[in-house]
Amino acid sequence: MGEKVIYLDNAAATKLDEAVFEEMKSCFFEKYAVATSEFGYSQGIEAREILLKARTDLAACLGADPEEMVFTSGNAESGNLALKGVAGALGEKKGKHIIVSKIEDFPVLHSAKTLEKQGFKVDYLDVDEFGFIDMGQLEKRIGADTILVSVQHANQEIGTVQDIEKIGKLCRERDVLFHTDATHTFTRIPIDVNRVNADLVTISAHTIHGPKGIGGLYVRKGTPLMKLMDGGFQEFDHRGGIENIPGAVGFAKAARLVTPEENLYLQAMQKRITELVFERIPLVTLNGHPEKRIPQNANITFHHVEGESITLHLDMYGIAVSTGSACFSRSLEASHVMMAIGGDHERAHGSIRFSFGRFNSMEEVGFVVEKLEKIIENLRRISPLGKRGGN
Amino acid sequence: MGEKVIYLDNAAATKLDEAVFEEMKSCFFEKYAVATSEFGYSQGIEAREILLKARTDLAACLGADPEEMVFTSGNAESGNLALKGVAGALGEKKGKHIIVSKIEDFPVLHSAKTLEKQGFKVDYLDVDEFGFIDMGQLEKRIGADTILVSVQHANQEIGTVQDIEKIGKLCRERDVLFHTDATHTFTRIPIDVNRVNADLVTISAHTIHGPKGIGGLYVRKGTPLMKLMDGGFQEFDHRGGIENIPGAVGFAKAARLVTPEENLYLQAMQKRITELVFERIPLVTLNGHPEKRIPQNANITFHHVEGESITLHLDMYGIAVSTGSACFSRSLEASHVMMAIGGDHERAHGSIRFSFGRFNSMEEVGFVVEKLEKIIENLRRISPLGKRGGN
Repeated sequence: MGEKVIYLDNAAATKLDEAVFEEMKSCFFEKYAVATSEFGYSQGIEAREILLKARTDLAACLGADPEEMVFTSGNAESGNLALKGVAGALGEKKGKHIIVSKIEDFPVLHSAKTLEKQGFKVDYLDVDEFGFIDMGQLEKRIGADTILVSVQHANQEIGTVQDIEKIGKLCRERDVLFHTDATHTFTRIPIDVNRVNADLVTISAHTIHGPKGIGGLYVRKGTPLMKLMDGGFQEFDHRGGIENIPGAVGFAKAARLVTPEENLYLQAMQKRITELVFERIPLVTLNGHPEKRIPQNANITFHHVEGESITLHLDMYGIAVSTGSACFSRSLEASHVMMAIGGDHERAHGSIRFSFGRFNSMEEVGFVVEKLEKIIENLRRISPLGKRGGN
Repeated sequence: MGEKVIYLDNAAATKLDEAVFEEMKSCFFEKYAVATSEFGYSQGIEAREILLKARTDLAACLGADPEEMVFTSGNAESGNLALKGVAGALGEKKGKHIIVSKIEDFPVLHSAKTLEKQGFKVDYLDVDEFGFIDMGQLEKRIGADTILVSVQHANQEIGTVQDIEKIGKLCRERDVLFHTDATHTFTRIPIDVNRVNADLVTISAHTIHGPKGIGGLYVRKGTPLMKLMDGGFQEFDHRGGIENIPGAVGFAKAARLVTPEENLYLQAMQKRITELVFERIPLVTLNGHPEKRIPQNANITFHHVEGESITLHLDMYGIAVSTGSACFSRSLEASHVMMAIGGDHERAHGSIRFSFGRFNSMEEVGFVVEKLEKIIENLRRISPLGKRGGN
């Protein structure tokens, strides 16, 4: 495969699509007016229309109205706005209780921790070995003072897809707002906000070959929400700051480019890498559910080996992967997701997350497993972690 | 001037520079790895280095260290992070008093209002006819419970440049943190954070032909700051969320492209439009200080005429301008800046903000004033606001 780098990291999805780039280009150089002005000049009005078109396209992906789609700087901001926004709007009026799952990604999880420090009570739902929450536990925890349930659509590390329809239904029955973080499912797995009864949905562009620095939050009409970002009255008064029109336009284009066929191909690569690894490498565990998972992710533990060692060895072959929790790779702490699904430190540290994107191919999958086989064998031979492979 | 639109609106500065675009391009398509991983693959480490280079370049523009430069999604976020971040970190520990000027831009002003609702006491400093704060008033207002003074470097509408060195010195003497919003001065007027004794400085890319969706906050080492955006541990744990490396790289390039010669040319256009207007059109007032103003802005009131009418008529000639407060053009409320400098509604509504950027020329200035002369004359002839022009 020569000099080319094979990205099976989250960067697999962060490469901008050329068609997205072309779409953004016209906003950079031709239609770059500020959208704010309603009484202003023609170009400003045109800019507003361009922004509305992007908003409409993205809202349509969720079965939502354009006025319910709020642009943010990314999924991190969307998650923060959902949690802190509802807390700010309802904390004094209705109650200070919030429920999240233990395996939420950091924007939601750490927003919850911040709110806890500010006097909110947060329940962190357990998950089973696959990462599913327990509906019975959720039901029991909802009380009169519960203002928000936030459970992700799919997990960022192990790819497990929750049954958000069931969760949404329960929340609606109990009159509690429901936020779901759909960063890893948007356009990959269909979501209809009305079928799901979601009040808030976090989406992001950089996970579907769109630009970084732009994301969205679906906000159901009438949802009480305090601003996270004060400024002007942009985004239906939910988020101040000059509109990032090139970003919005690129985001909408990225969403339009995803096809069901592409999602099937991503899933085929995911299934193939899993099959091949299980065929050729002993002592491995698939993390997450075998079927109910996002198409673009496989997460596998190679027992008795450090994930960091695997990463470094694959790197020598020009293969870019991350250990289980990509965001956490910076620290050496074990992934909170792996610990929550009942893994021990050994299982957590030996896990590798393979992410697939539009620019990956089945050939790459074969090449990667071939190299993996050798690497794991060698690492196990010298492993201080105990048992050798193949025993 | 044919079909070409002359932007003398804030869009004059928001057009991306082609060189910025080229710099971003390589991050979109070649070096698009995620910077988060420290123990990861080579491309991730390279991404971190690219990000550090951008950070270093921008920090250098302020005489700061790279670790003091935090990337945000723009000046709106930076202003929110500065005010709410200090409030969150020091509110319980030191006090709940904040001082801002009455003419801050909305991110700072509305963050202050939000904090007021949360139990903080905010003093809004008066300004004189030019927009300068009163140092005596500031001095009197600082008390034992004051945690932050936020006074902008230059005003977004009238362009007046405050003496932030004096303000910073006073704040340092009184042991109060000082934030300045330098959205409209960054690279246009030199700032040295150590000379100015600033603890927090807001900067933005979109005001200097950089991309939208990226900004920065200088955070002096050791400044207590609560996160606005929870997530991972990015940005020295001041701001979670995946790093927008193309944005950061574009921002740094945009900053490097600004030259002292360019700033002189912007200033020459500003002085020329003012001279010509005063020469040819009666009953006009220059808003802001004649000398102590940013190079790229002129703000002029055409008495007895509505700003919106001027905007619409200039639009017919392909000239794009905004009324005094571009961000407020959406509402018909009078600009808070114009009211604070002692203007009445008539003066506020008749004001036009001319902004100049790299792609404007002296020829355009002549063309615009020529058209303006006719438009104002016609509008005054039919004006319901009283006196005709030329009397």
